[in-house]
Parts: sequence; structure tokens; C-alpha cells
Amino acid sequence: MKTSDILKALSISLQIDPDPVITGISTLRDATSTQLSYAVSDKHANDLKRTNAAAVLVTQKLENLVAAGTVAVVVEDPELCMARITHLFRKVFDLPEAGSQQIDPSAKVFPNVSLGTAVIIGKRSRILSGVYLGDNVEIGEDTIIHPNCVVYHNCRIGSRCIIHANTVIGSDGFGYAHTKSGEHVKIEQTGNVIIEDDVEIGSNTSIDRATFTSTIIRRGTKIDNLVHIAHNVEVGEHSIIAGQTGIAGSTVLGRNVVMAAQSGATGHIRIADFTTIAARGGVTKNTEQGKTYAGFPLLEHRAWLRFQAKLARLGKE
Amino acid sequence: MKTSDILKALSISLQIDPDPVITGISTLRDATSTQLSYAVSDKHANDLKRTNAAAVLVTQKLENLVAAGTVAVVVEDPELCMARITHLFRKVFDLPEAGSQQIDPSAKVFPNVSLGTAVIIGKRSRILSGVYLGDNVEIGEDTIIHPNCVVYHNCRIGSRCIIHANTVIGSDGFGYAHTKSGEHVKIEQTGNVIIEDDVEIGSNTSIDRATFTSTIIRRGTKIDNLVHIAHNVEVGEHSIIAGQTGIAGSTVLGRNVVMAAQSGATGHIRIADFTTIAARGGVTKNTEQGKTYAGFPLLEHRAWLRFQAKLARLGKE
Amino acid sequence: MKTSDILKALSISLQIDPDPVITGISTLRDATSTQLSYAVSDKHANDLKRTNAAAVLVTQKLENLVAAGTVAVVVEDPELCMARITHLFRKVFDLPEAGSQQIDPSAKVFPNVSLGTAVIIGKRSRILSGVYLGDNVEIGEDTIIHPNCVVYHNCRIGSRCIIHANTVIGSDGFGYAHTKSGEHVKIEQTGNVIIEDDVEIGSNTSIDRATFTSTIIRRGTKIDNLVHIAHNVEVGEHSIIAGQTGIAGSTVLGRNVVMAAQSGATGHIRIADFTTIAARGGVTKNTEQGKTYAGFPLLEHRAWLRFQAKLARLGKE
Repeated sequence: MKTSDILKALSISLQIDPDPVITGISTLRDATSTQLSYAVSDKHANDLKRTNAAAVLVTQKLENLVAAGTVAVVVEDPELCMARITHLFRKVFDLPEAGSQQIDPSAKVFPNVSLGTAVIIGKRSRILSGVYLGDNVEIGEDTIIHPNCVVYHNCRIGSRCIIHANTVIGSDGFGYAHTKSGEHVKIEQTGNVIIEDDVEIGSNTSIDRATFTSTIIRRGTKIDNLVHIAHNVEVGEHSIIAGQTGIAGSTVLGRNVVMAAQSGATGHIRIADFTTIAARGGVTKNTEQGKTYAGFPLLEHRAWLRFQAKLARLGKE
Repeated sequence: MKTSDILKALSISLQIDPDPVITGISTLRDATSTQLSYAVSDKHANDLKRTNAAAVLVTQKLENLVAAGTVAVVVEDPELCMARITHLFRKVFDLPEAGSQQIDPSAKVFPNVSLGTAVIIGKRSRILSGVYLGDNVEIGEDTIIHPNCVVYHNCRIGSRCIIHANTVIGSDGFGYAHTKSGEHVKIEQTGNVIIEDDVEIGSNTSIDRATFTSTIIRRGTKIDNLVHIAHNVEVGEHSIIAGQTGIAGSTVLGRNVVMAAQSGATGHIRIADFTTIAARGGVTKNTEQGKTYAGFPLLEHRAWLRFQAKLARLGKE
Repeated sequence: MKTSDILKALSISLQIDPDPVITGISTLRDATSTQLSYAVSDKHANDLKRTNAAAVLVTQKLENLVAAGTVAVVVEDPELCMARITHLFRKVFDLPEAGSQQIDPSAKVFPNVSLGTAVIIGKRSRILSGVYLGDNVEIGEDTIIHPNCVVYHNCRIGSRCIIHANTVIGSDGFGYAHTKSGEHVKIEQTGNVIIEDDVEIGSNTSIDRATFTSTIIRRGTKIDNLVHIAHNVEVGEHSIIAGQTGIAGSTVLGRNVVMAAQSGATGHIRIADFTTIAARGGVTKNTEQGKTYAGFPLLEHRAWLRFQAKLARLGKE
């Protein structure tokens, strides 16, 4: 699809020269030379200068910052425009092609399982009843997927993983652009989820697919029940995420992070290696390696204990 | 079923004259002339005077307040009595009648889907594997229901909706009357859920059916993963409800309300149009239009920031 | 399996004499004379003296405390060692044996249901579409299991229960031992869940199986949507647990406990009979019978109200 065709589909008439062919959409950092990207503010200035994108949607103000080899397409609201363009690349859910799956003979697929087109299941893995594996899903070796789990298209689950019942891997991230009249236009979530080896995930947990790239759960991490992992989150190796915790979009957890029950983290922050967050802790900014935190707003654990002692005295005055 | 027969089924012997035929149960406001209702305190005085119900269960104290055309049935504990009566109108879950469904030829129903009696599926909608649509469920056009979702009987989902995997629409509201010895008697939830057009709902979310009328999600609203919407809630147009939020029973959200992640609202309140609740905010009373709030107890966002600054100074003293 | 064989499987060479046959693993208190157990600190001293276990894994320091008839096996890290041993007793998920189920002729099993080996379903119970009942699951009479619920192997559900859609009973508790290099070794959860009579459970709720014994929900208790009940929890009769509440491992709730929405309890505590926890309350220590609590840290409700009033004044100063 040429860039001009994409704009035409959105009823935008602009002279585009050159007029590159677009095969997909991505962030400024990840876009390849046949992909489209976008920027909304000058905090993306550095990324704009270095992007490999074929073209970028920008406001007039940002036009000058666009990398030399990249076509700048000036529009009023680049995010809203981009959201509409993602609809042109929307996944179509079709009935699976029979016979297109590669299931190792040592794997066991239980009754009432639904397998999409081109699903791959590794040695000795077990897919229990009622599981749905979408198109192009790949499951490693010795993994067990418990009943009624759903793994959306293009997601990958490693070896020796255990995914408990009714957990969802790869549902759409919660991403919208907004019109001036207050309507929400879906940004199609075209990325996926990658679960590395030796990960265990509890029941009724939701891990959303990335907007454009991958939500990643690294090797050895253990996640409990009813946990919410938003789009583009990355959870480092050997981390522990206890029940009913939520991690908002694009936040990165290091290795051996512990998030105790009912804790939470806002989006776009970094939780350093070996950080521990106490139960109910709410993380709203970056943490320091190896430290323990509690509360909301978050404090270092010792400071939180002192603070609670002060509050308790105040309560008794 | 005559009113006297209903009371007989509960081993209550009362002279009822006239003795109207009862076809269902509802609130004082919504009851029609063949329905039964009930009242437990004088805060229902106005509704009692104006109800169209065929009959109402009331305490002796409220008997005089009952509308002229309505039969007053005096019982000791109207709510407990009503709970027991709802059992007479309980839904019976029977195997679906083959051939009773109306599925548009352009719709796609995937393998391992279960359709109840008289289900209707509109043009181009896709019902993915493992979905269950209960009796009389109606799905609009161009809607996609992702795998293993469950939509209980009588619920309606509009057009261009997206319901993500393992979400439940129409499970029973959490409603019980209580005996003197501390047992809980289920109030059968005979209402439904109505999801209007252009709504998207994340994975592993629960939206309960109303006790007697409808839980309503209005057009254009977007709901994230692991959200709990209780019975009789109404969510206005173009609202945004982020992950792990919970809304308790009968609360009404206006249009373009934003509830950030892990927030909550108690029951029976109104959240005004264009209200924003920050992450973890807990709403316990009505809000004012267009304002932003945070914290639990809830404060206006600016007041909350000042308050947190004060607490932080206190912590350092 | 002889004790020495178990150690050999873990590459531990120890002289064991006598060398008892081991048929399973349990806690010091619950282990029978053919089971293995373990202890990690002297807070288990009393249990060590009184255990009936065939053998126990202990540190050198605890060796002398072991009961006379029990073989003491001294290892460096008993918990990690035990975790590895549980893998030898791991449940193998095999395709169900056709014809091994006992389904009362008056029960109704809907299409797309998956029944494990030796499942028992009582009179007039209804198992709706997409439900999975694992091996040896037993369902009482007049119980309804709504669509797409998953009940893992060996769990038992009583009579007149209602389990709403997509709820999971018996997924693995969140239990790991940890290596020195920060990896997590799964402790296989070999226990089960017992749901007594007249229990109702909402949708998308997770109740984990016990590590070695049983997670128990006692008769008449009502649980809402999206609730997390961890391994080895015991919920007393006629309790009420509202939406999005979480109870951590081994905590015991008495009878008629009320946990309001989004509340939580830490592990290994006792919540006394007739305790009420307000919405968002976080219980971190034992409560007293009949009292009402709120907040996190938790206060008695009246003290919490006074405390909030003080904070409000502070906010206005």
C-alpha cells in the first residue's frame, strides 16, 4: 500500500513525494524502512532524527526534525490519524485452515481444543480441553496449557511453561486515540506476547499484546492469579508477581523483581533489578536496585514504617 | 400464578383480596401491573405511592403508603420474603433447541461454540471458539466475541463491539437477603445486561446482570481487563474504565467518565459526566461534573496533591 | 518409592536406615506414616516432636527434635529439597478414560463439556457448555456449574452450589522454593479444593488448591466475581466475600465473616467469626470476633473514622 493510498483511505489529500510503500506500522525506534510511524511532541525529537521509518505522521511543528531518508506527512492530529490507519492493517479472524498445524507426535491435544492456522506445538506439551490457540501461535516443549486458556494469534510460549486455566495471553492492549468530541478510536494492537521458558502463570490472568512490538515475560518468572499485564510491558527474569497485581503499559521490570499481592505500577517506568514492592504498594516512578518499597504514594519500606508509626501516633493524640 | 399461590408456596397464609396474577418481580418504579414488588423502609414512601405493581410486600408500618390500585401484602421481612419468591421465577437451564437460532449467513461461528435457544447473530459478526451465548442472546452486526467468552441468557450486545477472551457478560449480581440466623438467601437475578454499539471490553472482565431490570454499558465506552461491573450499574457513553477497576451495584456513571486503573466506586452513587478518577481512587459519594479526583477517601485532585505534600512533610519531621 | 530412591533421584547420597517407603508428601501435622515431610526452623519444634511422618527433611540443627519413629534426613536446604521431591509426585495430565464417569441420569451435561477420568455428578446437577471437570472431580446434587468453568482434578463441590462462568477451582497455589542464584523451584500443589453445600461463587474467580491438604469453602458462603482465594485458605460458614477481594495463603476466616469489595488479607492469619472488613480494608493480623474494621493498615472502624476526620482537618490546616 502506498503512503498516498493510505491517506486517501482516510480522506486526506496530500501531495506525497516520494510515495513509499507501507507494509505496517511501528514506533519511531522500531519502524523498518517499509513501515509508517508517528510523533506527537518534541520529546520524540531524538527518535524522529534517527528513525528508519519510510514515513512519519507529524504536526507541522515537528516537520523539520524528521530524518533525512524519511517522508514527513504533516497532519493535524498524528495520533488520531495513526489510530485510523491501524484499522487498515487489522487482523481478520478467519476459520482455521485444517491441516496447517505442526503438532509434535509426542504432544497431547485434549478434546474440545481449537487450533488456529499454522499453530506449532512442541514435544511432549499438553494442551488441555477448551484451550484456543490463535493463528501462528507457537508453543515450546514440555509446556502445559490448562483448560480454557486463550492464546491470541502470533503469540509465543516457551518450553517448560505452565499456564493455568482461563488465563488470556495476547488480548488487545487498551489503546485509543481520542476525537475532539470525546470519542475513542481504537489503535489496533498489531504486536504480540512472548513468554520465555520456565514461566508459570496462574489462573484468570490477562497479558495484553503489544501495540506494535512485543509484551515480554522473561525466563523463570512466576505470575499468580488475576494479574493484569498491560501492552508493551517487559518483565525481567525470575521475577515474582503475586495475585491481583497490575502493571500498566510499557513499564519495564528488571530481573528478580517481587511485586506482592494487590500491588500496582503505573505505565512507562522502570522497576530496577531485585526491587521488592510490598502488598498494595503503588509504584509511580523508577525504583532503585535491590530496594524494598511500600505504600501508595510509594516510600522505601523503612520510611513507610516510620511514617505509619507517626500516623498511628497522630491517630491517638 | 396468583398472589395467594405465591404466598402458599412460601407457607404464608394470608387473605388476599383481590388476588392478582403475578408474572414477575421488579422494583417499585419498574413494576408493571402484573408484577410483584416490595419495600423495606420509608425512604421508599414516594415510590410506594406511585408504583404500578399488582402487589407489594411491605411491613405493617408501610401498609398505608401503598398506591390505591396495588394490593399491600404485609409480611415481617419483605426483602427475605421477596428473595424466596424470586426462586419461583428462577431461570431453568435447559439444553438448547436445535434450529431455533437466527444466524445471518455472513456471520462466522467458529468450532466449539455453544449457542442457546433463539440466539440471534447479526451480519458479519464473528463468534470465536469456545464462546457460549445463552438463550435469547442477541448480537448486533460487525461484532467480534473472542474465544471462551460467556454471555448469559437474555443479554444484548450491539454492533461493532469487541469483547475479549474469557469475559463474562450477565453472570448473577451479588444479591442476598439474610435470615436471623445469618444465612444468605439468594435474590434471583432476573434482569439482563445491555451493551450498546461500539463498546470494547477487555479480557477476564465480569459484568453482572441486573436484579430485575438492566445493567447498561452505553455506546462508545471502552472497558479494560479484569474489571468488575456489578448489577444495575449504568455506564454512560464514551467512558473509559481501566484495568482492575470495580463499580458496585446500582451506581450510575455519566458520559466520558474516566476511571483509571485499580479504582473503585461504591454502590448507589452518581459519577457525573466528564469526571476523572485517578488510579486507585475510591469513590464513595456523588462527584461534580468535569472534575478530577484521587485517593481514598476521595479528594479533588488538587486537594489530594496538597494533602499528600503535607503528609510527606509530616513524614520527614 | 523408598526414601533412599527419592534422594538418589535428587543426586543426594545419604545412608538411610531404616529406609521407609514413601507414598506422598505432607505437612508435619498431616503426614501419615508413609509420607515424607520437612521442617526449616525451630518454630516447627513441637510439630517435629509429634509428627507421624515416615521421614522428615531437616537441617542439622533440627535433627535432634525429630519424633522417635520418624527418620530424620539431614539436608542443607530442606524446603528446596522438598520442592524438588514434589516433582516426583507430580500429576500427569492424561486423556480421560471413556466410560469411567458416574453421571446421575437426572443430571444434564451440556455440549462441549470435558469430563476427566472417574468424574462423579450428582442428581439434577447441570454442567453447562465448555466446563472442564478434571480427573476424580465430584459434584453434588442440584448444583449448577456455569459455562467455561474449570475444576481441576480431585476437587469436590457440594450440593445446591452455583459456580458462575469462567471461575477456576483448584488451580495451583503460588508456591516456590528459591535457589541461591534466585531461581524459583515449583512446589507441586498436590492438595485439592473442597467447596461445601449451598456455596455460590461469582464469575472469573480463582480458588487455588492446597499445597498438600485442602483449601476449604464452608457451607453457605457466598463469593463474588474476580476474587482470589490462595492455597490452604479456609473460609468459614455463611461468609460473604465481595468483588476483587484477595485472601493470601493459609489464612482462616471464621463463620459469617464479611469482606467488602477490593479488600484483602495477608497469609497465615485468623479472621474471627462475625468480623466485618470494610471495602479496601487490608487485614494483616488476627481480628477479634464481631468487630468491624477498615483501612490499610487496618483499624477498628470507629478508630478509622476518627483517624480520617483528623487527617481531613490536617488537610485543611
